Amino acid sequence: MSESQLTQQNCEACKADAPQIDENELAGLIKQIPDWSVEVRNNIMQLEKVFKFKNFKTAIAFTNLVGDMAENEGHHPALLTEWGKVTITWWSHSIKGLHQNDFICAAKTDRLAS
Amino acid sequence: MSESQLTQQNCEACKADAPQIDENELAGLIKQIPDWSVEVRNNIMQLEKVFKFKNFKTAIAFTNLVGDMAENEGHHPALLTEWGKVTITWWSHSIKGLHQNDFICAAKTDRLAS
Repeated sequence: MSESQLTQQNCEACKADAPQIDENELAGLIKQIPDWSVEVRNNIMQLEKVFKFKNFKTAIAFTNLVGDMAENEGHHPALLTEWGKVTITWWSHSIKGLHQNDFICAAKTDRLAS
Repeated sequence: MSESQLTQQNCEACKADAPQIDENELAGLIKQIPDWSVEVRNNIMQLEKVFKFKNFKTAIAFTNLVGDMAENEGHHPALLTEWGKVTITWWSHSIKGLHQNDFICAAKTDRLAS
């Protein structure tokens, strides 16, 4: 699946008993969003990427773009807005880990930045 | 100095050789914004507070309110927006610590939330 294929999908409802992606799926999906790193915090796997901007105003404008997309998808990241940069972190709270939804939303975040 | 006195002030230019507040000043100022905690990260003292909201939309609306105030003051916090909460962290990058500006902006953040 390519990044453009990821962006053509929408998040599906993710229940607490939905399976986390397995190692093979992770290996395949992360190739489609190669600039994202996988972080593990409190035993929860997350996708993270820092987006750089020239000042605060353009940074918070991006925060709002990603926020609008998140509302549309019904799936919400952590958005850390600072002067000149925004750090976006996607994971699926209900399963305490990564679901395909997170890769879809990471790819859509890249598209918003481009 | 009361919280309302803090909110009546504006941030002043903070150069790299400006003094950090000392312990006595910290003790006096933190009393005016009692809901803020002092965190030390990478040896940098910071003011932090979590603001709770009923959903994502109201959380990011608050992020924007604080962002507008920050632009007006010419002093910018870290704003971590998540579903139902926003964590605001103030510190003065140029002096790697706390300046009176941070207390002024923390008090103004409280006023925006009320």
